[in-house]
Amino acid sequence: MTHDSAGWRSPAAEILRVTAEGLGAVEPDSTPGYDGSKKDGASSLASGLTALGDLQERLYARSAVGEARASVLLVLQAMDSAGKGGIVRHVVGGVDPQGVELAAFKAPTAEELRHDFLWRIEKRVPAPGRIGVFDRSHYEDVLIGRVRELAPPAEIERRYGAIVDFERRLVDAGTRVVKVMLHISRDEQKKRLMERLDRPEKNWKFNPGDVDERLRWDAYMAAYDTMFARTSTDDAPWYVVPANHKWYARLAVQELLLAALEDIDPQWPVADYHVAAQRRRLEAS
Amino acid sequence: MTHDSAGWRSPAAEILRVTAEGLGAVEPDSTPGYDGSKKDGASSLASGLTALGDLQERLYARSAVGEARASVLLVLQAMDSAGKGGIVRHVVGGVDPQGVELAAFKAPTAEELRHDFLWRIEKRVPAPGRIGVFDRSHYEDVLIGRVRELAPPAEIERRYGAIVDFERRLVDAGTRVVKVMLHISRDEQKKRLMERLDRPEKNWKFNPGDVDERLRWDAYMAAYDTMFARTSTDDAPWYVVPANHKWYARLAVQELLLAALEDIDPQWPVADYHVAAQRRRLEAS
Repeated sequence: MTHDSAGWRSPAAEILRVTAEGLGAVEPDSTPGYDGSKKDGASSLASGLTALGDLQERLYARSAVGEARASVLLVLQAMDSAGKGGIVRHVVGGVDPQGVELAAFKAPTAEELRHDFLWRIEKRVPAPGRIGVFDRSHYEDVLIGRVRELAPPAEIERRYGAIVDFERRLVDAGTRVVKVMLHISRDEQKKRLMERLDRPEKNWKFNPGDVDERLRWDAYMAAYDTMFARTSTDDAPWYVVPANHKWYARLAVQELLLAALEDIDPQWPVADYHVAAQRRRLEAS
Repeated sequence: MTHDSAGWRSPAAEILRVTAEGLGAVEPDSTPGYDGSKKDGASSLASGLTALGDLQERLYARSAVGEARASVLLVLQAMDSAGKGGIVRHVVGGVDPQGVELAAFKAPTAEELRHDFLWRIEKRVPAPGRIGVFDRSHYEDVLIGRVRELAPPAEIERRYGAIVDFERRLVDAGTRVVKVMLHISRDEQKKRLMERLDRPEKNWKFNPGDVDERLRWDAYMAAYDTMFARTSTDDAPWYVVPANHKWYARLAVQELLLAALEDIDPQWPVADYHVAAQRRRLEAS
């Protein structure tokens, strides 16, 4: 089954896949591949939600009866205020919560730091039949880890390879890994952070540390580009989603999720019991 | 802040609280306390969703800045097909997934069985700022546990007291515990299970064991009544929600959640940094 990709000139998974040029080739203000307006985008998002809900239920059903091990893992990385929360709320939030496993990774605890960086990640890998969402992820360990020199250079180097091996294992075990970097411009971030300062009910979302990280913008962009070069594989490619327009970013991530689920193409399971016999039992009960 | 409880003749938390008569006093087909029609109910549910989303965000914000330890725990118990899944999807599903922690308890694993019955429950208690949802719960251990004699009578007896102590601790630590039994009639269950057999895409939701449990209907109703008598406390009362009408059950559970959140009355946190100074820093960055 396929949903209606109206408005998409070419598949999002092709047009958004990171290239050798990295972030330099992607304009945060653009809406690549999508011909529609913001209004068209809202209606595409609504109809995509129905398709996503249907595919999710089929995926869940297959695994509930032990027939399939497929799952989807959406990895979200971005600079502060790029819209990860909006993706979780408006794209993932439309799916039945029973089929979703959301993991938000903060700064590691003392116990987590005593283990390899993938130790806490492994524990949150989605079960079969589920759509897992990582709001930040193991990639923090080669992003802030690199920019802030939280580990020696050799250790950062080791992690790229460890990540590729780890994700290959997930893919081999039946997980579609969809890695998304939401790409906003430096000016757009300033505007969004300023809004958090201007509106008292948004003050709690602002942290003075956000400005500290912002001051290292160029170092972060370089760390992202290195990360793409080292960890974007055919098994688990990176997608760079321009995110200055929130409506486009949400629509694009939904489209990437839909493509992953359509690739799994989950079918309703066939009853492993005799339906007519159970109907008679139930009738008599 | 309070939401508009239009259509409710008296507070759901008063009218639905279990009485000494137990299930015998509740007609599964009724819609107690609500004057509106099914159509009114749908519009109340939609407007309640907005209020619930606002309250949830405030609750989350307070805990995100470490200012409050309040949380909500919704416990859902019911016979098969009574609509727990629909509550999760249509009531809880409207809330930002970042603020929700859903735990579905299945038959305990071998490891879980080696521990006290509350061991696996404790691990899933919601964090401050979250709305936790238990789809089945520690109450299975005094429901199927009692009906199927999965533990000796003295052990079942012990559990009622252990549950009361456990929930009092949660309440003392800041959690509002909202315990809901969705009450359908035996005939309504037959109709719903039959639908699962009649529609091939619903076959996976049916399990021949569902009929086995159904044959013990009266024993289950007695186990529910004993459970109410032993564990419905002022700290953590039980609510019996008539559930033959799905629209009513969803609206009633939403109303109970709204009342719990309004009782917490979470306020937006005040910035713990100097807003004007941060604005200048950001402007210069």
